[in-house]
Amino acid sequence: MNNISSNKRSFAIIGGDMRQIRLANTLCEDGYGVNVYGFMPDTQHLKIKPSDCLGNTLKNTDIVVLPLPALSETEAINAPFFDKKIKIREVIEQMTSNQILIGGKIDDSLKTLLDIHGIYYVDYFLREDFTVLNAALTAEGGLSIALSETAIALSSCNCLVVGFGRIGKLLCHALNGIGAKVCACARKNEAFAWIDAYGYKKAHINELSDIVKDYDIIFNTVPHKIITEDVLENMCHDTLIIDLASKPGGVDFNAASKFGISTIWALSLPGRTAPITAGDIIKQTILNICDELEV
Amino acid sequence: MNNISSNKRSFAIIGGDMRQIRLANTLCEDGYGVNVYGFMPDTQHLKIKPSDCLGNTLKNTDIVVLPLPALSETEAINAPFFDKKIKIREVIEQMTSNQILIGGKIDDSLKTLLDIHGIYYVDYFLREDFTVLNAALTAEGGLSIALSETAIALSSCNCLVVGFGRIGKLLCHALNGIGAKVCACARKNEAFAWIDAYGYKKAHINELSDIVKDYDIIFNTVPHKIITEDVLENMCHDTLIIDLASKPGGVDFNAASKFGISTIWALSLPGRTAPITAGDIIKQTILNICDELEV
Amino acid sequence: MNNISSNKRSFAIIGGDMRQIRLANTLCEDGYGVNVYGFMPDTQHLKIKPSDCLGNTLKNTDIVVLPLPALSETEAINAPFFDKKIKIREVIEQMTSNQILIGGKIDDSLKTLLDIHGIYYVDYFLREDFTVLNAALTAEGGLSIALSETAIALSSCNCLVVGFGRIGKLLCHALNGIGAKVCACARKNEAFAWIDAYGYKKAHINELSDIVKDYDIIFNTVPHKIITEDVLENMCHDTLIIDLASKPGGVDFNAASKFGISTIWALSLPGRTAPITAGDIIKQTILNICDELEV
Amino acid sequence: MNNISSNKRSFAIIGGDMRQIRLANTLCEDGYGVNVYGFMPDTQHLKIKPSDCLGNTLKNTDIVVLPLPALSETEAINAPFFDKKIKIREVIEQMTSNQILIGGKIDDSLKTLLDIHGIYYVDYFLREDFTVLNAALTAEGGLSIALSETAIALSSCNCLVVGFGRIGKLLCHALNGIGAKVCACARKNEAFAWIDAYGYKKAHINELSDIVKDYDIIFNTVPHKIITEDVLENMCHDTLIIDLASKPGGVDFNAASKFGISTIWALSLPGRTAPITAGDIIKQTILNICDELEV
Repeated sequence: MNNISSNKRSFAIIGGDMRQIRLANTLCEDGYGVNVYGFMPDTQHLKIKPSDCLGNTLKNTDIVVLPLPALSETEAINAPFFDKKIKIREVIEQMTSNQILIGGKIDDSLKTLLDIHGIYYVDYFLREDFTVLNAALTAEGGLSIALSETAIALSSCNCLVVGFGRIGKLLCHALNGIGAKVCACARKNEAFAWIDAYGYKKAHINELSDIVKDYDIIFNTVPHKIITEDVLENMCHDTLIIDLASKPGGVDFNAASKFGISTIWALSLPGRTAPITAGDIIKQTILNICDELEV
Repeated sequence: MNNISSNKRSFAIIGGDMRQIRLANTLCEDGYGVNVYGFMPDTQHLKIKPSDCLGNTLKNTDIVVLPLPALSETEAINAPFFDKKIKIREVIEQMTSNQILIGGKIDDSLKTLLDIHGIYYVDYFLREDFTVLNAALTAEGGLSIALSETAIALSSCNCLVVGFGRIGKLLCHALNGIGAKVCACARKNEAFAWIDAYGYKKAHINELSDIVKDYDIIFNTVPHKIITEDVLENMCHDTLIIDLASKPGGVDFNAASKFGISTIWALSLPGRTAPITAGDIIKQTILNICDELEV
Repeated sequence: MNNISSNKRSFAIIGGDMRQIRLANTLCEDGYGVNVYGFMPDTQHLKIKPSDCLGNTLKNTDIVVLPLPALSETEAINAPFFDKKIKIREVIEQMTSNQILIGGKIDDSLKTLLDIHGIYYVDYFLREDFTVLNAALTAEGGLSIALSETAIALSSCNCLVVGFGRIGKLLCHALNGIGAKVCACARKNEAFAWIDAYGYKKAHINELSDIVKDYDIIFNTVPHKIITEDVLENMCHDTLIIDLASKPGGVDFNAASKFGISTIWALSLPGRTAPITAGDIIKQTILNICDELEV
Repeated sequence: MNNISSNKRSFAIIGGDMRQIRLANTLCEDGYGVNVYGFMPDTQHLKIKPSDCLGNTLKNTDIVVLPLPALSETEAINAPFFDKKIKIREVIEQMTSNQILIGGKIDDSLKTLLDIHGIYYVDYFLREDFTVLNAALTAEGGLSIALSETAIALSSCNCLVVGFGRIGKLLCHALNGIGAKVCACARKNEAFAWIDAYGYKKAHINELSDIVKDYDIIFNTVPHKIITEDVLENMCHDTLIIDLASKPGGVDFNAASKFGISTIWALSLPGRTAPITAGDIIKQTILNICDELEV
């Protein structure tokens, strides 16, 4: 791998949504070389003129950046602001072994393709620094939904947060910070230790059925069916469930519907509610990767 | 004034929006006598059958409750969920001197009318307990707008709060609680002392022009034109101004428009973003008033 | 009153403890003229050579600063680091009507004397800006005592704060900030509104006897006998009472001793636990006074 | 291992300090069988009569609990409140294979001995639940030292926390909670992500020399010599260093002394500043261990 001094790094940004646009704009403002492809010339907010062809985009760049997720369907790059299909195979075939590829959620078939062509790649979605910052945005997005979708003030609310991983920790922190009464629900002794250390109320996930009736808003962060029919049956009818867990989600939505419990399944919050900061996080992670790789 | 033991208090709730509906429902759930007038029979969320005429509504009640604001136009009660006009004069003429009237924003002509008829009245909008709790809802509503109307995460934002009265204090508290960087802008030494005591950054209102360029979101809470053309001229174009001040507001909206600065003038937030809690606050204030008057 | 431009202000600092020493040092570092009197030449931390006589101290100064409290006993300035008695009458007799006097807790006899001699004076202890910042130090001092005098962790403690004035507000804020469970106890509806707005638990002072048994630490901030024998009788034996109220304090200390309840009466905390910051607060207040008076 | 139903668990508590005394008292209050050995009969706070000999202590108990650290010197149990030496070998020889041993910091020679005798053992000091709760006490102890050992108010202080592991996280949380300005200093991108997510200021450990001059108090939590002579040379003379790291500590104490920088090396805080809560944590951990082992 060639060692490029950081001030000479140049990027080929290909496809993606508002986050990728922000990434391109801000890398450019910081003085990096930036080529952009996979956007219509009149794409809103994009401050860089897109290249007219893939070849020119890749030329003289060190790092090729795919969006999150990298691919929208088999063989094509996720490019909602473009009217042509960009085949990933074509990108890889035009890359040289001096270039590296960075993207989010690189799937197995793409990995195989990259390995075959001897292209070094990094999936930033798997990195802890990205995941933590993304969790902060998800937590804030959950807070935003709770504020806008309820007719009650959060500061007078009893909130239950199910799961005390990254999102759970940051959501409890934010809810507590605005004066809501917070109870964190977990399963492991280690999690209970952190809950105690931060001074929140705690409950065991096995107790869910018994305690849910006391809460105005229930946030789920666990990607397993934890809010089951048994749990839903015991809730008040005006409780709101906000499910922040990725697929398959944590709520039995059919049962919720049967009992008349309102649920909001909030997927992909960072990109939807805070795309600029989400783009900044990707940029920070990519620069961290480059520093670590000394490219 | 007759001394009614608190468990026998009965209320005539006339007109109003979702807050007044919540008030009627929850007083009724608490066991108080509640008559309701000024709503269509099929009004959503209203759990009490409205009286068919004003006379029946007032009969056997101790306290007549008007909405906030009490009147929508001269002589008529503010009743958005009713298809007839309720003349305030008719209400007062049918009240007896044993009854008291409680309402929000009772204007001078109404006061005169009440005095003429010898009706004891209280304007809850002027009470400190109501104002503080309402300020908390306004602050939370401002936070909600900031979260939903920006493409950046508040936890990575520089926020400026202009004014350090009730709303300013509670807004700084909430913003700081979710990890935003907060600077409070005030004019009086006493306010600066509180800002220091809570550990926020501080600035003098006279410095506004010099410092606004450093902030992503500016919340105004001062009901005077403080965000003038001079101040607006120095802002970044992607700064968002959220004006929480009541009329006439604190922003020169024409100048803001000229410079392309986004502004949101968020009036009457509690009733719009948290009507249930806003109704609960009115209820709490009315019960406080009754306790103090020993009615 | 002569209008001195601020960069030419000069001060005569007479007597006082570590706070007054800090005041003198830091005014001097800021470039103000500073004469000092009422300290032994070898007084620790004092970076300015004390004047050899009162006359030289007063000469060419605009503002004479007495300590907090100004007098230690009738007619003498409070000067713990000096081996002579400084009669206040002598100071006043040597002042001119161009000079102003600023001090803390100026008593009635001193006011009379100043009026007789036509000396303009300000008692900074009566100013809201000083009182708020001093309350913040008192709250922090109370927190420090609670941390060092108990064998339990505050973050696992139930804390009761009696009184929700300045000290009560800031103490609840700090306790909540480190994860303690906080209940604020007050009497007025306005106070309850603030307690709700900040999201703390609340209780009425009339309920004290019923609720005290649930608390590990009770902080009193009300300078009336509120923690009476009746209240003390209901406490657990390992509850600690920290009384932050000025004389006469809020605890029936005899009854507490009878029931074996530990009590700490923490008087004059700012000067004892954070004298440097306490001196900085006095400096800030004095400069605020000078700005307002345009001296 | 025999499966004892939890309400029949019985413990032999041998040696230790105030934490072990609290552990014995509170297990007894909860209804568990508790024998105690290794304390003088008049040991303060101990509410259980110590057994007269080791044999009676072990008889009819399921779990033998040693203190933290388990041994004070080779072959003897750490028993500061006892006037005889308790040889660990004698304890183990009198245990049966039905009993398990739980203790803190079980060293290699003790492990070997336990293995030889076929005794099942758990070192609670290695468990995450214990470590987190203990870190919370260490953080609070550090806060207490900062409050009591400085003449400035923390709420007006710039604090630097070096290291963002468990103690660093909880210390930043507490400092921020009382209004101090907090900067967290770390080395890994993952740590920076958490620091950003919580909204603190951040710095890289490599920058220490450049930034230390801006801080009033520096807390170290990293058990490596990070506060080196180079770093110390750049500090202000009135900066206080509080070293919370276990041996060998993180400060070059000789260099600190040479430059006149005050340092406090605060070892074993939980047992010293909050022994009751520290005992409660040990109890909680031991009950967690028993639940997991189904004993």
